[in-house]
Amino acid sequence: MAPITLVLGGARSGKSAHAERLAADASPRRVYIATAQALDDEMATRIADHKSRRDLSWRTVEAPLGLSDAIKAAATPDHVVLVDCLTLWLSNLLLAEHDIEKEADGLIATLTDAAGPLILVSNEVGLGIVPDNALARAFRDHAGRLNQRIAEAADKVVFLAAGLPMVLKG
Amino acid sequence: MAPITLVLGGARSGKSAHAERLAADASPRRVYIATAQALDDEMATRIADHKSRRDLSWRTVEAPLGLSDAIKAAATPDHVVLVDCLTLWLSNLLLAEHDIEKEADGLIATLTDAAGPLILVSNEVGLGIVPDNALARAFRDHAGRLNQRIAEAADKVVFLAAGLPMVLKG
Amino acid sequence: MAPITLVLGGARSGKSAHAERLAADASPRRVYIATAQALDDEMATRIADHKSRRDLSWRTVEAPLGLSDAIKAAATPDHVVLVDCLTLWLSNLLLAEHDIEKEADGLIATLTDAAGPLILVSNEVGLGIVPDNALARAFRDHAGRLNQRIAEAADKVVFLAAGLPMVLKG
Repeated sequence: MAPITLVLGGARSGKSAHAERLAADASPRRVYIATAQALDDEMATRIADHKSRRDLSWRTVEAPLGLSDAIKAAATPDHVVLVDCLTLWLSNLLLAEHDIEKEADGLIATLTDAAGPLILVSNEVGLGIVPDNALARAFRDHAGRLNQRIAEAADKVVFLAAGLPMVLKG
Repeated sequence: MAPITLVLGGARSGKSAHAERLAADASPRRVYIATAQALDDEMATRIADHKSRRDLSWRTVEAPLGLSDAIKAAATPDHVVLVDCLTLWLSNLLLAEHDIEKEADGLIATLTDAAGPLILVSNEVGLGIVPDNALARAFRDHAGRLNQRIAEAADKVVFLAAGLPMVLKG
Repeated sequence: MAPITLVLGGARSGKSAHAERLAADASPRRVYIATAQALDDEMATRIADHKSRRDLSWRTVEAPLGLSDAIKAAATPDHVVLVDCLTLWLSNLLLAEHDIEKEADGLIATLTDAAGPLILVSNEVGLGIVPDNALARAFRDHAGRLNQRIAEAADKVVFLAAGLPMVLKG
């Protein structure tokens, strides 16, 4: 089975850069699956910033919703696939009112069946004060549950803080 | 002295499930001290969800405020007591305008004198942006201080992220 | 080169007390550089609380904005300098509309050239839900980037939770 790595951390903790380094070590043939959508200037700037860091060895695929299909299409034994990030994918699913449990089941099945190595980036969002609004609380519950399920399926899990990895698993 | 374990983590980090596994390993005779109050539907659902995971080997005691007394009554050398969670207890105390320092002193004394093994679940809430409102800031200060005191009294402290434990102590 | 230690953690995680213990072990001659400003009662109480913990072996310097100059003036081979904290310094710079990138460049240069051991305290603020307002989002981006840069320059990085350190580097 191809290895699955989960890179977990807070905002601006260096998750993406760490995941890109792991990918660079894994294979010279790299696919970047972006779940972000440039819906506003702030997000467009962030996407451009991430893109500028990746060289021509990367092929970029956009998959704001259809993540499982994008992974199936991209994963081969000699390609490494980086998904950045699961938290935005979850946010997109919630906005589009998809069935989260069903989507998560589908993703887990895709990950465990993938033909090549996968690196997944996800945010930890549950370590602040309980949010005032119910939607934010529901989101962090979904995000926490998704992270637990992915971590269980993963071979290796690292937690990033200030750009430095702590190994949680593997 | 009976061992004290603190299970610390964010929302939906797998703290309760981890604490329940620790308890299952510690003794076949288990007491679950719940500090949650089913004041609204969201909380009622969460309580039911937690309850459905525990089998008949568990006896459940509700102690939204009188936590020390509940621990004293439940702790024996051949029972393991799981408290879930300290953060809700603190929140209940603040709402009821109890003296937090005095309550914390009482709890620490109870823990160190307990006749049997204790497993305590608590939330880390201080790793987000400074909250806008003063009450939330006061709450996270109290929660942080309580976690520090419990961690100091504990023999073992684990921090959960994505369902995976990092050992902080013990 | 004199060693640089970064003490990272959440609110009320025991960062300052841990940093003070590290400083006490490093040298009997200690300089405390405070970046906090007593702009309101809450902050004044917090400053007084921190001050009451430090004995006469400490000299205190206030540097809400001019942090690099204060470090340059204080650092000698037989003094340990503790900066508490970088997050408030960043907040002060943003309020005063300074150029954050330039200030961070200057600080990094000062740290790497310092004549004596440095201990720096900083908050991790990126592990909660995405804040509603753009200013808070910008702040946590700046804070995360600054923490990454300082961690890269540091010889030792510890992450505090419930008063307990996890070593991230060194």
